[in-house]
Amino acid sequence: MTTIKDVAKLAGVSPSTASRALHNSSLINSATRQKVLDAVEALDYTPNFAAQNLASKRVNTIGVILPVMKSESDEDLFYMQIMQGIVRMCNAHGYTVSLATGKTTDEVIHNVESLSRRGQLKRFIFVYSKKEDPVLEYLKKQAQVKYVVVGAAPDCHDQDLYSVDNDNVAVGQEATEFLLEKGYQNICYVYTDLNNHVQAKRYRGYQKAMKENDLPAMSLKMQVTDHDLNVRLFNHFMQKNPDCHGFVIVNDLIGIRMQQVFDILSLNEKQYGLITFDNTVLAELARPTLTSVELFPHFLGTESAALAMSLDQKESEQSYQMQRNIIVPHRIMERLSTPEYQSEK
Amino acid sequence: MTTIKDVAKLAGVSPSTASRALHNSSLINSATRQKVLDAVEALDYTPNFAAQNLASKRVNTIGVILPVMKSESDEDLFYMQIMQGIVRMCNAHGYTVSLATGKTTDEVIHNVESLSRRGQLKRFIFVYSKKEDPVLEYLKKQAQVKYVVVGAAPDCHDQDLYSVDNDNVAVGQEATEFLLEKGYQNICYVYTDLNNHVQAKRYRGYQKAMKENDLPAMSLKMQVTDHDLNVRLFNHFMQKNPDCHGFVIVNDLIGIRMQQVFDILSLNEKQYGLITFDNTVLAELARPTLTSVELFPHFLGTESAALAMSLDQKESEQSYQMQRNIIVPHRIMERLSTPEYQSEK
Repeated sequence: MTTIKDVAKLAGVSPSTASRALHNSSLINSATRQKVLDAVEALDYTPNFAAQNLASKRVNTIGVILPVMKSESDEDLFYMQIMQGIVRMCNAHGYTVSLATGKTTDEVIHNVESLSRRGQLKRFIFVYSKKEDPVLEYLKKQAQVKYVVVGAAPDCHDQDLYSVDNDNVAVGQEATEFLLEKGYQNICYVYTDLNNHVQAKRYRGYQKAMKENDLPAMSLKMQVTDHDLNVRLFNHFMQKNPDCHGFVIVNDLIGIRMQQVFDILSLNEKQYGLITFDNTVLAELARPTLTSVELFPHFLGTESAALAMSLDQKESEQSYQMQRNIIVPHRIMERLSTPEYQSEK
Repeated sequence: MTTIKDVAKLAGVSPSTASRALHNSSLINSATRQKVLDAVEALDYTPNFAAQNLASKRVNTIGVILPVMKSESDEDLFYMQIMQGIVRMCNAHGYTVSLATGKTTDEVIHNVESLSRRGQLKRFIFVYSKKEDPVLEYLKKQAQVKYVVVGAAPDCHDQDLYSVDNDNVAVGQEATEFLLEKGYQNICYVYTDLNNHVQAKRYRGYQKAMKENDLPAMSLKMQVTDHDLNVRLFNHFMQKNPDCHGFVIVNDLIGIRMQQVFDILSLNEKQYGLITFDNTVLAELARPTLTSVELFPHFLGTESAALAMSLDQKESEQSYQMQRNIIVPHRIMERLSTPEYQSEK
């Protein structure tokens, strides 16, 4: 089994530096982080996978809660990778993973409730995070139940929440800085739903980068499905902001939607810079291919599983000191959608 | 809860006709099938969802086996929808769903084995199907274990297999006939792996349609990731078959890969007809959008769950007569990738 020491050795850094790079400590410069992430990929390393002695004599089960199903979304791709990480980690430590989902919030709550009653399940992982989620509110009220939320670093919720997340403020900030370095100045943040914690935090990161460069922030809300409306929204935005050529876009799917709008309006794509998030298979399939921020969803899964399993242990038993809020790394994958800025003649 | 009677009423047909249309009986003409499928969508009907009295006093669990993880694939989108169907159906009937997967076949077998030992699990659903699968071979040898395979109608395996599938031979045949009706004659089947049962059956359907029209069959194997190789493979194929303008392509992802090859070679896309399968979110995102065959993966999930749960019941207890091999409907979603054939000047 690959350990953090192997990763450190290949990257030519100390094990503690490698570990800090993985948890995205701001003490580590980006070149070092890149070397460590390259080594992680080359060795197929999974953090915490074997580090813990979590197996117990009890039959243990972790409940995984999927969001209310939507049909038109690429989020499924991301959730599937998180879940594979969770299942792999849990299986390796003798834990069973049980799933709950539904077509409505009530159906999800009903299913979580019966899972908890039947299986006496007390440990859950939410693979999603949103404001005022009734499912989470329901679980909060249950005695002895503990849960880990993927995608919700603590400032959104209570301080004592267990969470696993990317540093989404840094993610938004770095994506914006990437466009600034390419020469773009008028940059817009494109989103679909600011009630989603992840989208809201990336927006904060974008605002931070713009402010530090004395540039005005602007935002554009787009639709996942309504194509004609997107064209109108974009036209309306461009009339007000004709100089805007850079776009920080909340996920790969909306990035492709933007490219489709450019197509319909016969805009020259080479004059625009688009950077998106999630680095799903869509980023490679877009035309031009999308520069996108890789978020290591498999690690989001393995780390949330490790955290959920550690909640079963008494503190004295813990062979590995768990943090309450775990941060997973990210990195920008440069592709063709971010050419150097060229001012119009 | 919506019943088949509601669907029949809205579609203006008898309940038995509606039921046959859903199971894709060849006795039903395509206009009637279309009316029934429209009603299914309008009413958000899920077959068998409430029809059965499957709840029992025992604590019951169904194990779901995911394939070995791949990173570059759109199959995840399809599996996720199947799983949501399974979880929804099982939860509604008081069953728990436990997951097994892994990064290698050995890891998957190990995890299935420990799931079965710990949880005394005897009922499994494979959400995938491939030739000589070691995981399936392992489960075959286990006493009292029964399983349902999604995507494997019985002619591939043993006759006594429990399966839920689309009629993939008909799917391949109808897709080919769709291109023939658009005026294409030189049509090629594009695949990545004929060891995959689904790809192999669609190929048989394609061959059948070509033979019935006295046209020669041809095929092209492409790669999921290696782009340069795809360009060379396509060039080599077109040198041998310069008149080929129609392509029946094994999934939406490879459809987009083909479009990228056309782009690189500066081919006029309007002279080619592309029809793909699965109708994932990718079909809508492609440029031009892809005509694709919708396969109702959510139904693949609910039906396989209903079948797996029925395996726990004694025959005398069964309130609903289960078939051993269930067929789920399909339909062609026409988009822009299949213009009428225009011969080159």
